[in-house]
Amino acid sequence: MLEKNLLKLLEQIAQGKTTPQAAMARLKDFSAEDLGVASVDHHRHLRQGFPEVIYCAGKTPDEVEAIARAIIKRHGTLLATRADKKIYQRVKKLAKAAVFHPRSGAITVEGEKRKRTGLALVVSAGTSDLPVAEEAAVTADIMGSAVETMYDVGVAGIHRILNRVDRLSAARVIVVVAGMDGALPSVVGGLTARPVIAVPTSVGYGAAMGGLSALLAMLNSCASGVAVMNIDNGFGAGTLAHKINTLPENVSK
Amino acid sequence: MLEKNLLKLLEQIAQGKTTPQAAMARLKDFSAEDLGVASVDHHRHLRQGFPEVIYCAGKTPDEVEAIARAIIKRHGTLLATRADKKIYQRVKKLAKAAVFHPRSGAITVEGEKRKRTGLALVVSAGTSDLPVAEEAAVTADIMGSAVETMYDVGVAGIHRILNRVDRLSAARVIVVVAGMDGALPSVVGGLTARPVIAVPTSVGYGAAMGGLSALLAMLNSCASGVAVMNIDNGFGAGTLAHKINTLPENVSK
Amino acid sequence: MLEKNLLKLLEQIAQGKTTPQAAMARLKDFSAEDLGVASVDHHRHLRQGFPEVIYCAGKTPDEVEAIARAIIKRHGTLLATRADKKIYQRVKKLAKAAVFHPRSGAITVEGEKRKRTGLALVVSAGTSDLPVAEEAAVTADIMGSAVETMYDVGVAGIHRILNRVDRLSAARVIVVVAGMDGALPSVVGGLTARPVIAVPTSVGYGAAMGGLSALLAMLNSCASGVAVMNIDNGFGAGTLAHKINTLPENVSK
Amino acid sequence: MLEKNLLKLLEQIAQGKTTPQAAMARLKDFSAEDLGVASVDHHRHLRQGFPEVIYCAGKTPDEVEAIARAIIKRHGTLLATRADKKIYQRVKKLAKAAVFHPRSGAITVEGEKRKRTGLALVVSAGTSDLPVAEEAAVTADIMGSAVETMYDVGVAGIHRILNRVDRLSAARVIVVVAGMDGALPSVVGGLTARPVIAVPTSVGYGAAMGGLSALLAMLNSCASGVAVMNIDNGFGAGTLAHKINTLPENVSK
Amino acid sequence: MLEKNLLKLLEQIAQGKTTPQAAMARLKDFSAEDLGVASVDHHRHLRQGFPEVIYCAGKTPDEVEAIARAIIKRHGTLLATRADKKIYQRVKKLAKAAVFHPRSGAITVEGEKRKRTGLALVVSAGTSDLPVAEEAAVTADIMGSAVETMYDVGVAGIHRILNRVDRLSAARVIVVVAGMDGALPSVVGGLTARPVIAVPTSVGYGAAMGGLSALLAMLNSCASGVAVMNIDNGFGAGTLAHKINTLPENVSK
Amino acid sequence: MLEKNLLKLLEQIAQGKTTPQAAMARLKDFSAEDLGVASVDHHRHLRQGFPEVIYCAGKTPDEVEAIARAIIKRHGTLLATRADKKIYQRVKKLAKAAVFHPRSGAITVEGEKRKRTGLALVVSAGTSDLPVAEEAAVTADIMGSAVETMYDVGVAGIHRILNRVDRLSAARVIVVVAGMDGALPSVVGGLTARPVIAVPTSVGYGAAMGGLSALLAMLNSCASGVAVMNIDNGFGAGTLAHKINTLPENVSK
Amino acid sequence: MLEKNLLKLLEQIAQGKTTPQAAMARLKDFSAEDLGVASVDHHRHLRQGFPEVIYCAGKTPDEVEAIARAIIKRHGTLLATRADKKIYQRVKKLAKAAVFHPRSGAITVEGEKRKRTGLALVVSAGTSDLPVAEEAAVTADIMGSAVETMYDVGVAGIHRILNRVDRLSAARVIVVVAGMDGALPSVVGGLTARPVIAVPTSVGYGAAMGGLSALLAMLNSCASGVAVMNIDNGFGAGTLAHKINTLPENVSK
Amino acid sequence: MLEKNLLKLLEQIAQGKTTPQAAMARLKDFSAEDLGVASVDHHRHLRQGFPEVIYCAGKTPDEVEAIARAIIKRHGTLLATRADKKIYQRVKKLAKAAVFHPRSGAITVEGEKRKRTGLALVVSAGTSDLPVAEEAAVTADIMGSAVETMYDVGVAGIHRILNRVDRLSAARVIVVVAGMDGALPSVVGGLTARPVIAVPTSVGYGAAMGGLSALLAMLNSCASGVAVMNIDNGFGAGTLAHKINTLPENVSK
Repeated sequence: MLEKNLLKLLEQIAQGKTTPQAAMARLKDFSAEDLGVASVDHHRHLRQGFPEVIYCAGKTPDEVEAIARAIIKRHGTLLATRADKKIYQRVKKLAKAAVFHPRSGAITVEGEKRKRTGLALVVSAGTSDLPVAEEAAVTADIMGSAVETMYDVGVAGIHRILNRVDRLSAARVIVVVAGMDGALPSVVGGLTARPVIAVPTSVGYGAAMGGLSALLAMLNSCASGVAVMNIDNGFGAGTLAHKINTLPENVSK
Repeated sequence: MLEKNLLKLLEQIAQGKTTPQAAMARLKDFSAEDLGVASVDHHRHLRQGFPEVIYCAGKTPDEVEAIARAIIKRHGTLLATRADKKIYQRVKKLAKAAVFHPRSGAITVEGEKRKRTGLALVVSAGTSDLPVAEEAAVTADIMGSAVETMYDVGVAGIHRILNRVDRLSAARVIVVVAGMDGALPSVVGGLTARPVIAVPTSVGYGAAMGGLSALLAMLNSCASGVAVMNIDNGFGAGTLAHKINTLPENVSK
Repeated sequence: MLEKNLLKLLEQIAQGKTTPQAAMARLKDFSAEDLGVASVDHHRHLRQGFPEVIYCAGKTPDEVEAIARAIIKRHGTLLATRADKKIYQRVKKLAKAAVFHPRSGAITVEGEKRKRTGLALVVSAGTSDLPVAEEAAVTADIMGSAVETMYDVGVAGIHRILNRVDRLSAARVIVVVAGMDGALPSVVGGLTARPVIAVPTSVGYGAAMGGLSALLAMLNSCASGVAVMNIDNGFGAGTLAHKINTLPENVSK
Repeated sequence: MLEKNLLKLLEQIAQGKTTPQAAMARLKDFSAEDLGVASVDHHRHLRQGFPEVIYCAGKTPDEVEAIARAIIKRHGTLLATRADKKIYQRVKKLAKAAVFHPRSGAITVEGEKRKRTGLALVVSAGTSDLPVAEEAAVTADIMGSAVETMYDVGVAGIHRILNRVDRLSAARVIVVVAGMDGALPSVVGGLTARPVIAVPTSVGYGAAMGGLSALLAMLNSCASGVAVMNIDNGFGAGTLAHKINTLPENVSK
Repeated sequence: MLEKNLLKLLEQIAQGKTTPQAAMARLKDFSAEDLGVASVDHHRHLRQGFPEVIYCAGKTPDEVEAIARAIIKRHGTLLATRADKKIYQRVKKLAKAAVFHPRSGAITVEGEKRKRTGLALVVSAGTSDLPVAEEAAVTADIMGSAVETMYDVGVAGIHRILNRVDRLSAARVIVVVAGMDGALPSVVGGLTARPVIAVPTSVGYGAAMGGLSALLAMLNSCASGVAVMNIDNGFGAGTLAHKINTLPENVSK
Repeated sequence: MLEKNLLKLLEQIAQGKTTPQAAMARLKDFSAEDLGVASVDHHRHLRQGFPEVIYCAGKTPDEVEAIARAIIKRHGTLLATRADKKIYQRVKKLAKAAVFHPRSGAITVEGEKRKRTGLALVVSAGTSDLPVAEEAAVTADIMGSAVETMYDVGVAGIHRILNRVDRLSAARVIVVVAGMDGALPSVVGGLTARPVIAVPTSVGYGAAMGGLSALLAMLNSCASGVAVMNIDNGFGAGTLAHKINTLPENVSK
Repeated sequence: MLEKNLLKLLEQIAQGKTTPQAAMARLKDFSAEDLGVASVDHHRHLRQGFPEVIYCAGKTPDEVEAIARAIIKRHGTLLATRADKKIYQRVKKLAKAAVFHPRSGAITVEGEKRKRTGLALVVSAGTSDLPVAEEAAVTADIMGSAVETMYDVGVAGIHRILNRVDRLSAARVIVVVAGMDGALPSVVGGLTARPVIAVPTSVGYGAAMGGLSALLAMLNSCASGVAVMNIDNGFGAGTLAHKINTLPENVSK
Repeated sequence: MLEKNLLKLLEQIAQGKTTPQAAMARLKDFSAEDLGVASVDHHRHLRQGFPEVIYCAGKTPDEVEAIARAIIKRHGTLLATRADKKIYQRVKKLAKAAVFHPRSGAITVEGEKRKRTGLALVVSAGTSDLPVAEEAAVTADIMGSAVETMYDVGVAGIHRILNRVDRLSAARVIVVVAGMDGALPSVVGGLTARPVIAVPTSVGYGAAMGGLSALLAMLNSCASGVAVMNIDNGFGAGTLAHKINTLPENVSK
């Protein structure tokens, strides 16, 4: 599109419809964005199916509503995270298709149902990790990934995950959410060859230090190839899982 | 293979060649590994093309040589990390194909040259980050990924990375290595839709705190979908990059 | 039981009642749990006398009530920690035997009074440490240990503990709860040959850092053989004390 | 014994063999130790079989030799930790029975072989954890516990520990040694009802922070009843394991 | 002035109007302030145009009103930071010219409009950084600097700042406000030769640690010559920016 | 120049010398650098008078010599930091004008003596802070600032700095270097209206924590408008001091 | 006294009034407290003039009232810290002499006015440090020290403290209270030969880290002989100041 | 002395021997030090008996020798800390009375033996704390305090300190040196009414964190009125102990 516009402008010069000076003036108005770096924004569209995600924490219902209206109008699809029921009611008025995910506080709108691809598996250790796990799952789903979940399979009852090893193998990418000792990604990482994205949660008290304990454990995972997100960052994990899940087939050289 | 053995045993019972009691005794000797969880080890082979990587730090040359001999004999391929010239000379005697990568201290042996697939791009901020960047690149390469590198493109001279945006787009997965302010993954993450694996390095002094500064910055990257490895963990980044890079094509449902 | 089932299956093959292929299919469906690791859950029952403890923080009264009803029905015995009066009233309706321990917020139900064994002694330094000390004492008691307490014997008035040295000697295992300087476990550890479990509390302000000060002091206890629990983790200390207290007699070889 | 002496003194007064004033003088010379608190030292003898353990770090060979000579002379048995070959040679001259444990740097002397009782199992995650694991095992052994070891069973290859669940069940107390993610105690704690003592090691780099990562993970273990020792404190773990292992049988009330 | 007074006193001695002893007494009463250090306070006036800034956090409306009244009466100009609407209404009654800046909670009063000089540019990364950015801008403005702002130009969309490089060049001093990864000052520092003052904000969650992540990143900026303020300290940044912005021309020697 | 080239290209289209398609291809090859961002590098030259500073730590004498040769050849001026005598001897061979500053390990080369402007004052607290203070002074000097120093004026002997208040007033910008309690910048900041750049040093032991104590104190300076550099970063402070010191005169609007 | 009782008992044996066995039983009942260590409690009375101080935080008004009633009845004098108006009203009913100190929340009761001795000077940096400074002053005063205060003399206006150097010299012991940069104790310590007790306060935001910044600075004070209390611990500082202030005259040997 | 000089100058004006202008010039040369703040330095002499203490760490033998020569010449008395044998040999040549204290590395010179006054008691927990304890004892002694020591009385063997409670009571001020759990000051503080100065040492490993564990424990001591020095700062403790020990008798008002 950009190239098309640019070529059109150059052709207008060739055709004498525009003077070089006038074209020059227009080119100078072209921001760096217009001239190649613009792919940034274009990429953003491509990868998410909607231009922006609303992080509701610290925004008033009015502010969220205004942004949501603009996004839904243009794209029909929406993801808003860390919202509450109050904000949901505003969005519901804008779009009947709005769904509220109460554990994570995420709101999704999907104008017309699109296909999902691949398989991103979201695994979590305990019931308290569910808000973060749900945020990851909802994010990957609304972006276009097929998502499955496997909750409450913490390592203190190791048979729970062992009984479902086949489901690990079926996934293309695995998000593992855990607080406290952050041990689950190490076990999962040892049971699968798929990329593992570990998300520490702020679950726990005392020396859990708001998730720092789980974060450090995951960074030091004895299973190789485990990558870590910020504490409670289910959204980031879901986004990355979708990016990985939707990679095209590779070609040997 | 496992199933084959198991089926054979069951058929021997059916054929009266083995009593149920004798079969029972043998089945009890089957470790959990034999009965399904065994996929673990099998996976490890599949994903790396060689069963084990030697982490040389804290091992004597004798110990490394013994392990390396066993691995090369069985697989023909080897990766040893955090080695020195002394250890390299030992390995060189075992395998003429041994190559020493002096910045990272990695040793690779590749019996017969295999094909590489996809593209993993390793980007680093400063010259001091090279040992870690090289470890990531060497790891992904020996495992079977096509690897390119883009070094010394730190954000304080932002045009360096902007001039090569096309190379970012060409990659399937990008490893970004940086110390000090750890700012590069945020910029790269904003310029590409590909998965970004950030590796903080222990480069810097004072409040760099042995890489903690870069680690925290990367965990808090304002670009969504950036995952983080432990400080200086180039090996882990290379492993994960290879896993992501070699994912098969996805299927929509 | 497991073995019995397995043997039966094998015999059916021998007797021609089942083909090897059909048996194979059933064996593959056997989860890892079925094949030996299942003892895990069984152990949990054995060691606690009730299958699960309800950690009420972050759960609604409805959720706690539902879980409590199921547990009481099956076991008659219950431990719920970090509850409040509101939750207690729900549990009281389910079981007349319900008792609320107001300092720690623990709820216990003991259908019919069981015997207690051994002696677990819970020692605490100051009055502010009582909630955690009570949680440890209530936990060990409901699990089946005989429990005694010795409160408010902090080291700044060292005669208080010295006057009761005999009671230390009478115990099989000692839980020591302290905040601030965390000094009490070192003194107790020097006065007894029994296992000492130290629990730091988040009591204090300023450089107490939410219990970190006491935690570090206890980890560095100059009395050998003192083990440490997480900050404020009275439940964990009570559980471990009960495990130690109820060990069977040892046999020399 | 103490009481006997005291009673004897009082009887001498009654018999006129000693004046009240002379008895008074002797009683004043009785230290607090003599009057009840003295049990402290007596306990120390009872529980270890030898009065003192030599922590060699920071002591010269001359100093260690002098202390070792005194201990061996009186007790025939010795434990010296964090020693080197140089110190060992000194001790070897003092006692032919001296044994050097090279991984941990421990030296033991056992005049005449004593019986061992019970079973303390020492489990470790990786080969780099061996020095600490060995220190724990050697300590519990020389103190009188029967000790078994299960090394290199880290959670990234979970089948390794699952295959030996029966050995976990056979132990009376389990010491679990791990660095990096410190995940092993959580898995072991879920597989056994026995007391678990977790020892973090300073193994790892970057965000392992000299063992802090493993320490925090262990304090936050999702398996209940796991107690934690200081980083690298194999000696403390061995001491506590022996205390727990040698508890007499319990009596129900 | 000081010298004049002192000389006058000395001349009175010479003229016999004062005895040495009486002069001595007066000299002893001269505080250190009278003897040269007094310039301190004078400087404060000179540099800010008003004697004191009111930090409202922790002060009652009554207290703020009393201080504000005194300052406005004497100077006509006022800056109060971290105030709320309630406090603003009090100040509004004192001075009609009072303006409330709602994002930062700053109140300014400027009796008669004064000229502004130079150019201090305040740049911020995200919308959540606005309160701190506004505090910096308002502070520099009321002190007498010409101020421009460039908001929402975080590095994850690098084209946003690249499109306005000319505005960076136009400034004499640049305040860069950012939370989370704190990467923006490094990019800005590489794009300009002007002094850069970096202000970390407490924006973010998890490993952002209340701004510590951004603070460390900024202290380790790979762009040379970036100085850092305390977390959220927009006021300090505005003050320093004004000091730098209003330096007189330099003279070569 | 850029615009000229671009206009020329557009005119060639207008003149039919180039087709729109060919022009399009050339425009696409224009890197971002060619289109305005290129000023970055030009700025770097302008602001320092030499293109690059050599940070010698971690570089071999050969590497430093190669870089130094290139820089001296093109610019005649050089700054190399954290060097040692060995490296100095290499540089001395390249340039007779090379000077070694032994406390900081800085090397400077100034082909022909240039004028210095303004006044940057470097103040330090104790003798152990001298290496960092010297690095700051040498850096600002070689970049073109007139530099004065005032060493060993720590706050425990407050009269030392009070006696030289006039020298503080004479400076345009003040660098204050201190370790341990980091108190000096607060005192200096209260005695002057000039911009103050604080540099914490890693001097001290125990709770000094490698300079963290001084760093935190400086970030929390009770004197407003004090900006802080990384621990031991004398080079950064000198660079910033020079930038501030050489600002042109301001114009009121 | 103790000795007298003991001797009497022994004489009763000698006189046949008591049998050795009966004496033995009584001796065993003698707690450690009876045998010399009992001085502990007695000391507490001697040094403070009242047996206990009530730390009200976390206590209900009922609890405080009960304790206060007991103390006032026996001693007539009372110190209660961290109280509020509600608690004060309860105490006021118990004792008309009760005084509420609103900044610190301390309550004092002094039945009949006692003499004060010596001079403890409490110095504070800013107005926000007043609660802690007042707690120190009230504590030392009610314990019996003559107390003077010098508030708002922070180092950013160094002349404020310099003008009152004579008052520093007049004190026997100086408590210095400061938050943020914690610089004041270093300056005071350099201006006086008296013992200096430094108290960090939790005043500040961002990198002040709840007083940690000031705490570290004070521990690293460049003035020798400055001792430090816990953050916000005005009570501890007042207690220690009183202990030091009331030491009797020393005797040369 | 200062006043005398000043008065003399004023009299010379009165007598016409000096003109006001000439006096003015001289007065201007008078530094702030000359006019009252000068007492600072004078105090330093008074309180220590020698003007300066040499901190040898980081100084060459030549530098130490030069400073030592100057001090010994003027004062006859010397304290040098953190020295080694090499430095000692230099000082020994300067002064035959030089004594080397090998544990702490302190060197003292006392020209002619002076009287000691009062009693400062230095208590330490373990043998590894001796270097710091000795530094405190040597410092207080050479400054003029009578010093006694009580070593190796850690709380794990509580009877050791209980047996010597009388010696605690005899002291005017007590320095308590301990590493690891830092528990000893709490016990000592509870056994005495005297001022207690706690010194944490960097003894220990793992979570001892270079003394941080002991430091935090001491700051949170449950005994009121315990003040804390920096880690390993025996010199500071000795200095403060001497200041407290040598306070003159107090007068009631």
